[in-house]
Amino acid sequence: MVVDRQSVSEFTAGRLSIYLRCLGVLENESTRHISSHDLAERFELNSSQIRKDLATFGEFGVRGVGYEVAALKRHLIAILGLDQIRRLAVVGAGHLGQALADSGGFRSGGLRPGGIPTGGFAVAALFDNDPAKIGTRTRTGMPVRDVEELGEAVRGESIEIGVVTVPASAAEEVVRRCVQAGLKALLNFTSARVNVPSDVRIKHVDLATHLETLSFYIAASAERH
Amino acid sequence: MVVDRQSVSEFTAGRLSIYLRCLGVLENESTRHISSHDLAERFELNSSQIRKDLATFGEFGVRGVGYEVAALKRHLIAILGLDQIRRLAVVGAGHLGQALADSGGFRSGGLRPGGIPTGGFAVAALFDNDPAKIGTRTRTGMPVRDVEELGEAVRGESIEIGVVTVPASAAEEVVRRCVQAGLKALLNFTSARVNVPSDVRIKHVDLATHLETLSFYIAASAERH
Repeated sequence: MVVDRQSVSEFTAGRLSIYLRCLGVLENESTRHISSHDLAERFELNSSQIRKDLATFGEFGVRGVGYEVAALKRHLIAILGLDQIRRLAVVGAGHLGQALADSGGFRSGGLRPGGIPTGGFAVAALFDNDPAKIGTRTRTGMPVRDVEELGEAVRGESIEIGVVTVPASAAEEVVRRCVQAGLKALLNFTSARVNVPSDVRIKHVDLATHLETLSFYIAASAERH
Repeated sequence: MVVDRQSVSEFTAGRLSIYLRCLGVLENESTRHISSHDLAERFELNSSQIRKDLATFGEFGVRGVGYEVAALKRHLIAILGLDQIRRLAVVGAGHLGQALADSGGFRSGGLRPGGIPTGGFAVAALFDNDPAKIGTRTRTGMPVRDVEELGEAVRGESIEIGVVTVPASAAEEVVRRCVQAGLKALLNFTSARVNVPSDVRIKHVDLATHLETLSFYIAASAERH
């Protein structure tokens, strides 16, 4: 089944990732088959949504039996492109950027039969524009490189995803650099909303909004008590 | 206007935070008034949504003039409870937890006329359960404390928000501890979805899903080219 994945919504793509996580839990519990109904019940999802999302990519369920957990997991890993390591460049060597670099990356979905991870996200390089930081190393020894080298690194070191951990005021400039360097996927940790060309995907990890939303409810409860 | 804020959806609360950020940008540009239409145009928002969200909390606009930027910003700061410092406890002194502790926290919306921040989020304490980490200090000198002291710290040190930066496998246990300690607001950096009692709010910063969503589109474009 050939799908133009660029036409698939980010909501659907995000749900595939969540389904994959749920299947991992089921696999650990040695559950071999599950219906969309039980999958929905167990993880507070929506069963018709599950069927619709998966139907975009193929016929994975068997009537009366449901989905085979291991097989569906394999399919989702392939669909999400998690059967390989994707290399990240972190731009902004502040506390968060350094922490991400030192964490090494994120293991993802795919485990080979022996339990060896087959895919995930690896931090390949860390950049900054501060001369005082360039040339220094993080705690685990990753060098802070000059952001001027970003384009070269992306092209020469198979980097696919840019992670933006600069102050919000520098976000627009850094995103522009990432796009210019040829990155088509960006993870933005700043509170700035930055527009990107239509062939570039950007996901916002908006800590400020999360915290301010929490504040709203605490403030509310303080008022009520 | 008295509003039961617990009945306000997290989508609305999150949008208030975004409006606040937009108003900050406008204020920096010395824009004094703006209509919901222009606010929507400028920041790719929805004008009827803006009017509806704000109408929940009062009459902020003036027909034909729109919103007064500074006044609406003040109102949103008060509504979001950002006119004070909210204290966070970070549980999990790995790379991310230490980075958050060292960053000190997050300044938020409120700036007094002199430019002095009036509110935001401050990391007040960092916890772990690993004896090898307890008693050590982060780069900036914040001590790693025993998670057994969490309840005491929450009660004695006015901590309102728990930030969960442990491995996913420990998330459920740590969230349970946070709830038991009396925290009503949690920020979860793990990929685990954890249920909380109805009087507790939890926001998920789901890096894995963001990255896997990005992977989906890169994989797709790799396939197409």
